Amino acid sequence: MADGPGSRTAAVMAAIRGRIAARGLTPGEKLPSIRGLAGAMGVSPSTVVEAYERLAAEGAVRARPGSGFYAAAAAPPLTLAEIGPRLDRAVDPLWVSRQSLDGEPDLSKPGCGWLPAEWMPVAALRRAARSLARAEDAVLTDYGATRGPLPLRRLLARHFAGEGLPVGPEQILLTGSGTQAIDLICRLLVRPGDTVLVDDPCYFNFQALLRAHRATVVGVPYTEAGPDPERFAEAAAAHRPRLYVTNSALHNPTGATLSPAVAHRLLNAAAAHDLLIVEDDIFAAFEPEPSPRLAALDGLDRVIRIGSFSKTLSASIRCGYIAAKADWIEALIDLQVATSFGGVSPVAAELVAGAMGDGQYRKHLETLRRRLARARREGAERLGALGIRPWLMPRGGFYLWCALPEGQNAADIARAALREGVVLAPGDVFSVSHTASHFMRFNVAQMGDARVFPVLQRALAAPAA
Amino acid sequence: MADGPGSRTAAVMAAIRGRIAARGLTPGEKLPSIRGLAGAMGVSPSTVVEAYERLAAEGAVRARPGSGFYAAAAAPPLTLAEIGPRLDRAVDPLWVSRQSLDGEPDLSKPGCGWLPAEWMPVAALRRAARSLARAEDAVLTDYGATRGPLPLRRLLARHFAGEGLPVGPEQILLTGSGTQAIDLICRLLVRPGDTVLVDDPCYFNFQALLRAHRATVVGVPYTEAGPDPERFAEAAAAHRPRLYVTNSALHNPTGATLSPAVAHRLLNAAAAHDLLIVEDDIFAAFEPEPSPRLAALDGLDRVIRIGSFSKTLSASIRCGYIAAKADWIEALIDLQVATSFGGVSPVAAELVAGAMGDGQYRKHLETLRRRLARARREGAERLGALGIRPWLMPRGGFYLWCALPEGQNAADIARAALREGVVLAPGDVFSVSHTASHFMRFNVAQMGDARVFPVLQRALAAPAA
Repeated sequence: MADGPGSRTAAVMAAIRGRIAARGLTPGEKLPSIRGLAGAMGVSPSTVVEAYERLAAEGAVRARPGSGFYAAAAAPPLTLAEIGPRLDRAVDPLWVSRQSLDGEPDLSKPGCGWLPAEWMPVAALRRAARSLARAEDAVLTDYGATRGPLPLRRLLARHFAGEGLPVGPEQILLTGSGTQAIDLICRLLVRPGDTVLVDDPCYFNFQALLRAHRATVVGVPYTEAGPDPERFAEAAAAHRPRLYVTNSALHNPTGATLSPAVAHRLLNAAAAHDLLIVEDDIFAAFEPEPSPRLAALDGLDRVIRIGSFSKTLSASIRCGYIAAKADWIEALIDLQVATSFGGVSPVAAELVAGAMGDGQYRKHLETLRRRLARARREGAERLGALGIRPWLMPRGGFYLWCALPEGQNAADIARAALREGVVLAPGDVFSVSHTASHFMRFNVAQMGDARVFPVLQRALAAPAA
Repeated sequence: MADGPGSRTAAVMAAIRGRIAARGLTPGEKLPSIRGLAGAMGVSPSTVVEAYERLAAEGAVRARPGSGFYAAAAAPPLTLAEIGPRLDRAVDPLWVSRQSLDGEPDLSKPGCGWLPAEWMPVAALRRAARSLARAEDAVLTDYGATRGPLPLRRLLARHFAGEGLPVGPEQILLTGSGTQAIDLICRLLVRPGDTVLVDDPCYFNFQALLRAHRATVVGVPYTEAGPDPERFAEAAAAHRPRLYVTNSALHNPTGATLSPAVAHRLLNAAAAHDLLIVEDDIFAAFEPEPSPRLAALDGLDRVIRIGSFSKTLSASIRCGYIAAKADWIEALIDLQVATSFGGVSPVAAELVAGAMGDGQYRKHLETLRRRLARARREGAERLGALGIRPWLMPRGGFYLWCALPEGQNAADIARAALREGVVLAPGDVFSVSHTASHFMRFNVAQMGDARVFPVLQRALAAPAA
């Protein structure tokens, strides 16, 4: 948009901001007339109006109805540009999150961790919102029970029963998100300096979260069947970790599936070294057939199950859960009350239960699985044509963990792509040991934008930075 | 819809659930054929399909593509009694929260910290939910920007400008609740062992939250005009605290208002001892006239403003905010992404902005203030008849902080009242120094239940435990 209407508006805004900053416009002073400034800057009057409106929304100027626009009283402390990608930021575990969440709306995001809005069950969500409008008063106004509303916990308990994990709704605690679920568990179980095992590679935010708890993070190499069991047992013996945090169902970023034999060996190693396990089941609904679950094998003795509804239902309705031993749930409730007061939003739980209970939701998931299978196949083909090869073909989900052509560096490519409006997820943000610089995670549902493959091609062809 | 299609679907669902419960359908057994059951129940086949789909969505039955529907695996273990008050728990800062949030629905709760559902702007919330059902897809499905949706931040920025606190929307971070706002600030600024000042008495959950951060909590005696400024300066000099956490507008639990002179002295003491201040503005909308605000006097230099919408709009829609210096906001965003991933729920922010922007909301607040003024007057009279005297008459809000008659112990009375189904808030849960055992906080909006005054009278008359 080098010369589009957006950049003209931005230029007018910058001009006015500059005058205010340089005291060429003092607080309370009237801004230049719209026609006058339009003429002076060679833009249309409507561009000036748009710029003034946006400055008013920012608080830099004030609109007085019927009178015009004035420089605001004492300018607020200098507004950094309202978000926008920050190109100079280090490519760390938070980098992909911040770029993906806060990038301009017209960015293309094959590096992000969610589906496009049009792939989500929007009709079911709209029905759930209409039904919320008719809910009992208390659902709309009250904090609700500390565990979260019973209907959604019952629904989860039935799902768990279906996977051979018998757990009553009183052993389920709803939380503000899946990440918050792990955060609460860390508050309960992890002290600064404790060691926590993760997969290498693993979901990058596990690292950011564990750093916020000042834990020492140790990676275990991940294989096509789960973490390498020998190396897992060695790490457990050597580092005496308190916790191991992993994904079940479909591993992030690799899309791999835990095998029964590895699952069994992990649990034995965990028992031998008195290690607790957090199993994040967030990708469960993408599986064509259920794979082994640590929580079901272990019966919630030393495994804590967490999850959320962000990937298949809605990321906007923030809701996660924890299933754990009864006495841990009691302690987690105290911590959740202390740090969030109420737990999950009852409104959020009502919307989730409504959408999940919607007759169309199961069909939506079936359609989604088929659509993703096709997208994975097509994505792998198109990436293959650029010499980018999936490490394995996942059974489900939207991730392809890919090796780049010989000699390519993923962080360099991600930086180059970002300059052209494409957010990628370079391998090292997933790797505690920083040994994945030649890998990249692609979200096949976010690769429809026409820029993605040409930008990738150019970035691969560019000389290394 | 007594006889509509919805009730026919529900009847089929109930019939199948009943058979599963009575073991007439065992796990794995095929459900009756769609045509057969439709004929037997006198409904259309499509009604049976809809019922089976919904049961599948609930997890009670499983669909096998191309084969039909089957009863699901074993039901979850029988739910232990869904919580209920735990009479044996120590009367600590979490006690009132847990009793109030998780008590049986027929408990009377003059000890709780919120308004009854029927005092809340339910009609505006229903309109906001209907409007949510028509929102853009992305509002319903996506994580949204890390600061939270811009419309609500703009709305808050305008409110702040109105109180003389110029702050742009980029300096506002939406959070999952007011408590989460303070929690994030503590993550940024408080290290285990740091000292934090609070008012004595103060909102009990400040203590629980600060303990979760392993802070040393020091109380400053609270006067009718705010914290005692001499004692505040002494505590700041003696303990070198990192932070002071307080309520503005109407203090919890006393209902007192900070005077301009005390506000000025606090800020000078904070500057002299390099102390930061968290100002929780949660009761602002209850004020008849605005009182001094530390954030406005200080210009967000060493004051951080937080608040939420729980008291006057909805506690169910979890949403809070932080307004602070730009560089702190950046650091808080990183922490919020690491520990919650997305920030506030965009759905929640949409509902809050919708209800606040509703034409009826301002009128609702006016009505509420008048109704509360009457309730405070009447509550004070009826309590006075029992010898229970308000420490002061607040200018607004729903709290009366009351001295009990000579020789009475508030914790004993709270335990006795709980046995009769009345949750009270005994003074010492608010007092770091445990010097408020003869005080009780009453919520005048929650005293309409016929049990309250007889139970109080009996508890006062009982011999000490």
